Amino acid sequence: MAKTKVLVTRQLIDEAQRLLDAKEEELEIVQWQSEKPCERSWLLENAKGASGILVMLSDKVDEELLEAAGPQLKAIASFSVGTDHVDRNALKKRNIRLGYTPTCLTDAVADLTIMLILMAQRRGGESMAKVTKGEWPQMPWHPLLMTGPQIRGCTVGFLGFGRIAQASLQRLLPFGIKRVIYLTSKPGQPVKEDQLGLLKNANIPIEPASSADQLAEESDVVIVGCALTPDTKHLVSTDFFAKMKKLAVIVNIARGPIIDTNALVKALDEEQIFGAGLDVIEDEPNITADHPILRQPRAVLVPHIGSATIETREKMATESVKNLLAGLANEKMVNEVQL
Amino acid sequence: MAKTKVLVTRQLIDEAQRLLDAKEEELEIVQWQSEKPCERSWLLENAKGASGILVMLSDKVDEELLEAAGPQLKAIASFSVGTDHVDRNALKKRNIRLGYTPTCLTDAVADLTIMLILMAQRRGGESMAKVTKGEWPQMPWHPLLMTGPQIRGCTVGFLGFGRIAQASLQRLLPFGIKRVIYLTSKPGQPVKEDQLGLLKNANIPIEPASSADQLAEESDVVIVGCALTPDTKHLVSTDFFAKMKKLAVIVNIARGPIIDTNALVKALDEEQIFGAGLDVIEDEPNITADHPILRQPRAVLVPHIGSATIETREKMATESVKNLLAGLANEKMVNEVQL
Repeated sequence: MAKTKVLVTRQLIDEAQRLLDAKEEELEIVQWQSEKPCERSWLLENAKGASGILVMLSDKVDEELLEAAGPQLKAIASFSVGTDHVDRNALKKRNIRLGYTPTCLTDAVADLTIMLILMAQRRGGESMAKVTKGEWPQMPWHPLLMTGPQIRGCTVGFLGFGRIAQASLQRLLPFGIKRVIYLTSKPGQPVKEDQLGLLKNANIPIEPASSADQLAEESDVVIVGCALTPDTKHLVSTDFFAKMKKLAVIVNIARGPIIDTNALVKALDEEQIFGAGLDVIEDEPNITADHPILRQPRAVLVPHIGSATIETREKMATESVKNLLAGLANEKMVNEVQL
Repeated sequence: MAKTKVLVTRQLIDEAQRLLDAKEEELEIVQWQSEKPCERSWLLENAKGASGILVMLSDKVDEELLEAAGPQLKAIASFSVGTDHVDRNALKKRNIRLGYTPTCLTDAVADLTIMLILMAQRRGGESMAKVTKGEWPQMPWHPLLMTGPQIRGCTVGFLGFGRIAQASLQRLLPFGIKRVIYLTSKPGQPVKEDQLGLLKNANIPIEPASSADQLAEESDVVIVGCALTPDTKHLVSTDFFAKMKKLAVIVNIARGPIIDTNALVKALDEEQIFGAGLDVIEDEPNITADHPILRQPRAVLVPHIGSATIETREKMATESVKNLLAGLANEKMVNEVQL
């Protein structure tokens, strides 16, 4: 009997690779070997005849790839929480299952969210840059030197209030925040999923906002944590920034295009807001040293490291392999997108 | 009747300045006007005849200053939590009272502690620097790119376990840390002050360490939060780093000289530890661009901004003025050092 072919667009880590290698007798495993991202031409060429493909965020899963693979393709396992690189309709019409790894990175992204909020408020990037440039000896100490707003007493506004947002809120509570508002696709309606029992048990108000305007006007910290959809693209743009408080900060841990970068640069330039902490940005990773956001001392930009902890990446890799194998065997995936 | 003279080595902020100005009829207020630190010669010259002096961390209060002031001097009010710039014995033998502002900055410093822990673990400085240099487009994504250790499951070790340390711990609990150990001047003995009810109520072990060695060996995160004394100077040096875990990080929010900088640079160079987050460093602020710590990608150094929130600095200024006025009036200070 011919082996079932699977295509894997990266070398994996430890347990995940072992899990995959253990199936060598049943599977023909074709795996990209370099540390660089897999080349599109390699992907299209090697997809042919594959029953399962394990892809990274950087690999586009579209009609072209599915056509190249052929009708035997049963499952895509994506090593990611987001799935904007995947054409869901194209999968649906072919009955191809889609696995992803949304749960195991909650902690890592929520941790990074707190880092970015604090860096935006406390001028982490700006003050570190001054030290690195050797400016500390010439910084005259005065009472308001390098000060920023304090998180105690803040109203925190969440754009999107899913698992990661709620885990971030859990971490924020002992910092003494005063109130939480959140906007979902159903403005004004309470969320159903109370992932961590916060809505039931917290001793501060946690309420749905009725509009993006209200969220912009009332928040001292805005956390962008929603999915990227046609409705959320540039949800945060000129109008939103104009309504924000002068001492407010914005953090994006979701997807770059939810914030209009030009509008953000302008808002920072004109001191309409205090600062920004970004794990993601439009057109990433093509951010060159002359990008206007990098000239904003109050903008902190890190290279999409939300899930970048050793523990999480090991779990994501392992879960991707499990999803791939479950897809081939018609079994239950650890996490499957309902197409 | 001659007015009582007070000397103030900075312009203050809002409420604090108003509080001081309200006493103009009773007080002769001599105040340094520039945004630069007060010059020593100005301080010595103008101290003469003063009954109270409000000083900043950068103003040394020593025999020379007290002699220059004269025997009528009753109170020093320091705009700071630390008092290493003050010669306590010199004050004591003259019965001069010393006010300081230790409580109102707890939140601000605890917040910064969390920022520094997360930046050290998640490579905040290193990854931001890569983006700023325009390296993001060339960073090949792979599963372990820019990963660091995750805080969930960590053992956190506190060197010093006072108010700020306990407030930091309170913030750390929802991140899922596993265990806490702390070392005080009485190794192996439980602390008496349970500032926030954490020792009584937390559902993870919080235990005294028996030695610095134990703390170094068992901690995934080491937080330096003790006072600087002859006993704690270079408490963290070569031996300490040698005992630390390879994936552990160290954060200093106390005083620079508690960590031996050369030993830290060596530990980072040789990958004995994963990273460091420093709000303070030996010889600050004289850190020039060629300082060896600045060549360590895994060291984050910010310019002593622990208390640098707008809210805190306003409170510190106000409290300093209250301490000064209380000292003149023989009344109770908000916070007074027992000399």
